[in-house]
Amino acid sequence: MTRGIPPEAENLPAGAVEKVNIHRVTSDSKETAEDIIVREFPLTIMFNGQELVTLLCSPADLKYLALGFLFSEGLLESKEDIKRVVVDEGKGVVHVDTKNAEIADADAVFKRLITPGCGRGASFYSAADTGLERIESKLTVAAAEIFELMKSFQHHSLIFRTTGGVHSAALCDNHGILIFSEDIGRHNAIDKILGRCLDQNISTSQCIILTSGRVSSEIIVKIARRQVPVLVSKSAPTNSGVKLAEELGITLIGFVRGTRMNVYTHDQRVTI
Amino acid sequence: MTRGIPPEAENLPAGAVEKVNIHRVTSDSKETAEDIIVREFPLTIMFNGQELVTLLCSPADLKYLALGFLFSEGLLESKEDIKRVVVDEGKGVVHVDTKNAEIADADAVFKRLITPGCGRGASFYSAADTGLERIESKLTVAAAEIFELMKSFQHHSLIFRTTGGVHSAALCDNHGILIFSEDIGRHNAIDKILGRCLDQNISTSQCIILTSGRVSSEIIVKIARRQVPVLVSKSAPTNSGVKLAEELGITLIGFVRGTRMNVYTHDQRVTI
Repeated sequence: MTRGIPPEAENLPAGAVEKVNIHRVTSDSKETAEDIIVREFPLTIMFNGQELVTLLCSPADLKYLALGFLFSEGLLESKEDIKRVVVDEGKGVVHVDTKNAEIADADAVFKRLITPGCGRGASFYSAADTGLERIESKLTVAAAEIFELMKSFQHHSLIFRTTGGVHSAALCDNHGILIFSEDIGRHNAIDKILGRCLDQNISTSQCIILTSGRVSSEIIVKIARRQVPVLVSKSAPTNSGVKLAEELGITLIGFVRGTRMNVYTHDQRVTI
Repeated sequence: MTRGIPPEAENLPAGAVEKVNIHRVTSDSKETAEDIIVREFPLTIMFNGQELVTLLCSPADLKYLALGFLFSEGLLESKEDIKRVVVDEGKGVVHVDTKNAEIADADAVFKRLITPGCGRGASFYSAADTGLERIESKLTVAAAEIFELMKSFQHHSLIFRTTGGVHSAALCDNHGILIFSEDIGRHNAIDKILGRCLDQNISTSQCIILTSGRVSSEIIVKIARRQVPVLVSKSAPTNSGVKLAEELGITLIGFVRGTRMNVYTHDQRVTI
């Protein structure tokens, strides 16, 4: 990044980034420098022996990414469905086998998947299409708690501060961050969180998810499937994201900047 | 957005955005307000009578998006291939028929496509895999010209300044912006530019493309297919993006901020 490599960059996970030689250029100067850029890694998911998809991702938490992706696509419901997960990092493959060994209707997954704005996405345009239940959680969270969580969230993001090339997501309760993830894809960062929740049977019905990314309809569908009542983004929502959040009972917050934010839906969960 | 609705918002294209009622919240206040959010639109591409894909996009330049997508996927080479394009905006469908009426191998397109980091993406990891020619253009551009182009680019982006919810892309020459596009997806914004170039037989071999988004391998492949020698991003590249740009002869510039930028590859095209 132009602001130089932060000293904490030494603590980055192995393989997350790469050093390159670049030229730093201004209107009247050009000098060589060393820079750190984020790594892009192709991960193929084999589902019950069938090649389902190759995701471009950041090379960490590959197991959680695979499980979260399958959960988001409705191919896994809970940990009980899983027979075996084998991660072959060298080959960039995760094998997931389920107990009932159903073969996914890959064509249906694909057609639905390829609907990305920026990112793969399902074109769900009303809550009824999603088949998901409306979230009735009585959770409340103070505005001041959200501002604190977002501050802590941005501080956590070491790969972003070093490279500027990733999105981040976090699962939180009112007091702090429980799980944090970073990925070159905003969908992947959330799937890594959801996959870990599935793998470790973590209940999310009293939790908040933070994201650095924009909130389109597919992001709301992921969150709703895991019954998370509050989604907080540093960035903008789309109209379909707002409509689905309204219909599915999710409190959607965007543009958190310092001690200001926009609450798009279900503001009853946000207290002053 | 938290900074309020700019007065120019009145000039936004019809259907690009939607007004919503929100709550603006600080640590000690909550008030209702009107906000403008970006629209998300599902566009299905029918290719020679076959349903190929549904993209979530911004509802403008749908014809160019469809053509650019098909071009980027290698399903169209030039305008000569096209027999008929019909846009049915009401139904959210673009029909594209080609002269040889080949049926696309949808499965291959899908498998390759679903590789998104954030976005659909092809997992090309070396220039040889892409089958594309190395770009040998002698174009040069002054650093000061790039800073001016980027300033003009950011000023152009009315939907972004109003909603914060879109990416933008532009085709430029050394002196200014020739074509500008905005879309909720960073891939779509570039595909809209490439589709228009295809439709209007615009030569791009002496041009520069600007993007607001991150540069991963799939973005480089799109640019290379159209033989564009210089790609300038406001944001970060990935390692695979840099590697492919190096191999394919593309000058890749990132993190343009004011009068500073990083030149990752082929800096011989950037003069002081």
